[in-house]
Amino acid sequence: MEQSLNIAWVLVGGFLVMFMQVGFALVETGFTRAKHAVNTMGMNLVIYPVGVLGFWLVGYALMLGGVREWPSLGSTIAGAHEVKLGAFGIFGAAKFALVSVAEDPSSLAMFLFASVFMDTAATIPTGALAERWRFSAFLVYGFFMSMFLYPLYGHWVWGGGWLSALGVQAGLGHGHVDFAGSTVVHMTGGLTALAGAMVLGARAGKYRRDGTILATPGHNLPFTVVGTLILAFGWFGFNAGSTLSAADPRIATIAANTMLSSSGGAFTALIYMWWMGGKPDIGMCCNGLLGGLVAITGCCAFVAPASAVLIGVIAGLITPSSVMALERRFRIDDPVGAISVHGACGIWGALAVGLFADGTYGSGWNGVEGPVRGLFFGDASQLAAQCIGLLANALFVFPAAYGFFWLVERVLGNRVPVEVEWAGLDTVEMGSEAYPRA
Amino acid sequence: MEQSLNIAWVLVGGFLVMFMQVGFALVETGFTRAKHAVNTMGMNLVIYPVGVLGFWLVGYALMLGGVREWPSLGSTIAGAHEVKLGAFGIFGAAKFALVSVAEDPSSLAMFLFASVFMDTAATIPTGALAERWRFSAFLVYGFFMSMFLYPLYGHWVWGGGWLSALGVQAGLGHGHVDFAGSTVVHMTGGLTALAGAMVLGARAGKYRRDGTILATPGHNLPFTVVGTLILAFGWFGFNAGSTLSAADPRIATIAANTMLSSSGGAFTALIYMWWMGGKPDIGMCCNGLLGGLVAITGCCAFVAPASAVLIGVIAGLITPSSVMALERRFRIDDPVGAISVHGACGIWGALAVGLFADGTYGSGWNGVEGPVRGLFFGDASQLAAQCIGLLANALFVFPAAYGFFWLVERVLGNRVPVEVEWAGLDTVEMGSEAYPRA
Amino acid sequence: MEQSLNIAWVLVGGFLVMFMQVGFALVETGFTRAKHAVNTMGMNLVIYPVGVLGFWLVGYALMLGGVREWPSLGSTIAGAHEVKLGAFGIFGAAKFALVSVAEDPSSLAMFLFASVFMDTAATIPTGALAERWRFSAFLVYGFFMSMFLYPLYGHWVWGGGWLSALGVQAGLGHGHVDFAGSTVVHMTGGLTALAGAMVLGARAGKYRRDGTILATPGHNLPFTVVGTLILAFGWFGFNAGSTLSAADPRIATIAANTMLSSSGGAFTALIYMWWMGGKPDIGMCCNGLLGGLVAITGCCAFVAPASAVLIGVIAGLITPSSVMALERRFRIDDPVGAISVHGACGIWGALAVGLFADGTYGSGWNGVEGPVRGLFFGDASQLAAQCIGLLANALFVFPAAYGFFWLVERVLGNRVPVEVEWAGLDTVEMGSEAYPRA
Repeated sequence: MEQSLNIAWVLVGGFLVMFMQVGFALVETGFTRAKHAVNTMGMNLVIYPVGVLGFWLVGYALMLGGVREWPSLGSTIAGAHEVKLGAFGIFGAAKFALVSVAEDPSSLAMFLFASVFMDTAATIPTGALAERWRFSAFLVYGFFMSMFLYPLYGHWVWGGGWLSALGVQAGLGHGHVDFAGSTVVHMTGGLTALAGAMVLGARAGKYRRDGTILATPGHNLPFTVVGTLILAFGWFGFNAGSTLSAADPRIATIAANTMLSSSGGAFTALIYMWWMGGKPDIGMCCNGLLGGLVAITGCCAFVAPASAVLIGVIAGLITPSSVMALERRFRIDDPVGAISVHGACGIWGALAVGLFADGTYGSGWNGVEGPVRGLFFGDASQLAAQCIGLLANALFVFPAAYGFFWLVERVLGNRVPVEVEWAGLDTVEMGSEAYPRA
Repeated sequence: MEQSLNIAWVLVGGFLVMFMQVGFALVETGFTRAKHAVNTMGMNLVIYPVGVLGFWLVGYALMLGGVREWPSLGSTIAGAHEVKLGAFGIFGAAKFALVSVAEDPSSLAMFLFASVFMDTAATIPTGALAERWRFSAFLVYGFFMSMFLYPLYGHWVWGGGWLSALGVQAGLGHGHVDFAGSTVVHMTGGLTALAGAMVLGARAGKYRRDGTILATPGHNLPFTVVGTLILAFGWFGFNAGSTLSAADPRIATIAANTMLSSSGGAFTALIYMWWMGGKPDIGMCCNGLLGGLVAITGCCAFVAPASAVLIGVIAGLITPSSVMALERRFRIDDPVGAISVHGACGIWGALAVGLFADGTYGSGWNGVEGPVRGLFFGDASQLAAQCIGLLANALFVFPAAYGFFWLVERVLGNRVPVEVEWAGLDTVEMGSEAYPRA
Repeated sequence: MEQSLNIAWVLVGGFLVMFMQVGFALVETGFTRAKHAVNTMGMNLVIYPVGVLGFWLVGYALMLGGVREWPSLGSTIAGAHEVKLGAFGIFGAAKFALVSVAEDPSSLAMFLFASVFMDTAATIPTGALAERWRFSAFLVYGFFMSMFLYPLYGHWVWGGGWLSALGVQAGLGHGHVDFAGSTVVHMTGGLTALAGAMVLGARAGKYRRDGTILATPGHNLPFTVVGTLILAFGWFGFNAGSTLSAADPRIATIAANTMLSSSGGAFTALIYMWWMGGKPDIGMCCNGLLGGLVAITGCCAFVAPASAVLIGVIAGLITPSSVMALERRFRIDDPVGAISVHGACGIWGALAVGLFADGTYGSGWNGVEGPVRGLFFGDASQLAAQCIGLLANALFVFPAAYGFFWLVERVLGNRVPVEVEWAGLDTVEMGSEAYPRA
């Protein structure tokens, strides 16, 4: 029965993560303008079925196919280990379309759980590229992300791939450790968003010839606040579900750390902006809260509550600094701050494992005996493994995403025409307005 | 302890289904106009307490009173079977107002779970009859639905009634099989909505004398998108909770199928409308997603993941076709598409059991040995049982609902005066506006 | 494993309660005006991190530190009892910043669960003081509430303090019994809101010189309805989670009673207002539903379903009567009705334990043998213990809160200048508008 209950735990966690789609939809739509609201909402809606179908057909097989078993879920596939493909731990190649595992509960539970993680990563760029992305190009992106880009890097860390083997094979700590996705989900989403924002360019009129920057406040800040709180709620499933076991009492630590880090991030961003600008900036407080969540995601099981607060506080400094640097110095236009929240704080979260892991959890992780320890608790090699994982993400995900957007630009075009942007994507591109007059 | 945990599973599933009221409220209010928003929201709010009270007093007793025990929940009512009433399996007659079972956890858990299913059925017509229904007539309807109409048909399928006995008594497969409510909940709600829409007639001005049809876009498409995703979230409780057991590993199959079918429905409806009309229609994509959910509801435990995708894809074709046929050919005015989503896809879901059930689950269902098989897997008699259940719904629920609305029309009047419709139900009928100026 | 599953149950319950922040944010923002929407949303957002940090640093230690163990969660802290401080059961003094219990799952699970209860209490005054509260004063309040005011009274009832000992030490029933927080959470929040509303005074222009009262309808009634249903959803976690055990089958009674009481409250308030004013008042129906939830919170485990309906019905009369009396007779300006919903119905809920507890549950509660019984079931002393708890709340929480607001008034000022109120807090105080023009 324990295995059934673990399956129930993974499913409930997955449901909560799926619900985060509502949070993303509201945060992003709140931060964008009314004339693009159907488009922004629509992308957050459509990425869910598109992602699920792409992941079902191909992505799950590349990421988790035939490579792992899940003892806590009572995997019943005889010889699942034998199907391991990809000589260097680069990708899996089994369970396409779930055909071979249609009757295996553990594989189906993991499919659901992995799908919603993938959808979280895939939805991140819809924020950064909002208000200018052609819907057909977005659709092609949805399949690319769910079938190839996310699953490949995901395989390296969670599917038995080479980054997870850095401990066993190279003696670097426990290999690259990412508890619930600071790198796999958030950095991947954030760097893909960055690549997209670079290829697409800024929204029309954002950067004026005289050097000034057009302020483009979102049209519904209450949506953003509600979406943020919804994300904080669903994130408990993200992190606590990642034990894959309700029988692991560490879920209490994980959930408490998640709450504490998000609080640290929100409070710090609020005070920082108040001190900088004289007003409590509620929008940035939302992003600080989300930054705290992203940062704790990778390390939530390995650190003490006080460390979680500190990790969140630092994320609450990183987020507004990164938002302002991207907008002003690098002139990269990200209407919702997704690159900073998910990319920058994802990097910070992966480093935090290598710094703050305190040796109270993780024995046997990636096949390495003994608990996970970071630099401050005696193991510098863990920090090295974390850095290698970050580098791999930066050197694979970013160029691959950049190349994808570049190719779409040649073949199909990534952007709507500038006059559609001015008129609003909703009337022209989507054919419906968000708030029509009666 | 297993029984306690199953009770916990049923309760959590019930909570998620209760949360679907938020989804319905947002989908329907988003699809209707601002001047009726308090009325549409208000119906979706009020149906919850009204339904619960009616079901508590009478409906639960008629549907599930004294007739069933739930072994997974450890029913402790001695002799519960003996109280079986209604010679032909037409209705139950015990546990009125929960008085006799006030201390039985399994009965109370099932009361909560059955209540929220009933409320889902009961809330469906509030969409189809929106923008013209008199609030007092709606209130009478709420009690009629929760006390009599839903419980009677529900008893036949889930309360030990004659449709569930078609297997044991007539040799037709496992009797009428409806895992989580394609017929019991959605077809019942959809046909009641159809009857109501026929008796009430179209909204003022919808069908003009010159034959043209007034477009009435909803006032807040973001509400509709958010509501749709909320429904997709809550639906996991609907379907996976219906095992009544967390110890049944089939919950993984059920949840994965739910996700896959909804994705198939959403994607198909999106592409179909894009191909028909040249634009990605986000509103219809929402309805396609919901159609996929309705269709998989009845069969989610019995079919393979690939079948779930196909069932969803077909639902994604049925939904827009039905919406357009109802509006244009049959001139039945359904502001939100509820009749198509719940009625048409509910029928499709019941048929899908009889076609795609693959013989991997359901041994002992309705007292019949061996797993459930559909036509494609060797048992044509299951399809016959499904059709009989559909016919029974069409020949009982629809006429009963029609008769009810007809009677209310004579006695009380179902509609607000036409000038109230023009002015908006909110100011005149409800006494408050949704969005007053400061 | 049972203890791990109980931890999972407490965590899931806590997640649901945390999600209630979304409900509060929507109810309150819906009831207030558009020009203050960022401020109202912002307070409901910011109270979460501020409360969590204050409770983490100090509040948890005062309330639950070192005093209790939780057998259902398998507390592993050796000698936790020995750290009992505060000679008269006035406060605890251990586990500050969770340092000493960083590795104890039960303490961390209870920290999360207790934090979200505290945040519920702390968010209540943000409704009553909306549209005029200075953001910096609100922030100071957030720390005061989470660090001192809530934890102290909470310690008396739930932390092993003197109110919980009234049974063992004074022979009054089971001591003050509050299952899930009618007094600890809701009355505390409601009386704090009352104190704040008295010190701050009414909104500018609310009470005119000619004695008339300005109607200030909220700007988004759909938000309020959605928020109410979200609160009803999250409340299941509030009440059913408070068993601290999934293995206690009483969770079914608790959840069913929660549903029934809220339904009784909503329906009664709807009919009452319809009868009084000729229209179905959806806003008051929301408050009636919430009043029913508040009232059942304290007694949900101890009463029969029929009693739960009656308790809700009475709450559905109390709520509108109290709202109208406060506004018209006492001229206390509470834009959302929080004082009535949480304060008045919280009192009623505590009394309901002492009246309706039917002797079927609660053996061993607060160390007293035998089940909890109210006056109608033979134990008048329980009602006495309930009244003492209410008095203690009225004589400690209210004056302490009043003193706090009075002090802030001297030192910092509680209110924004009147011209900021007229212009809207959003532009001047918060620096962002909720709904800017494109």
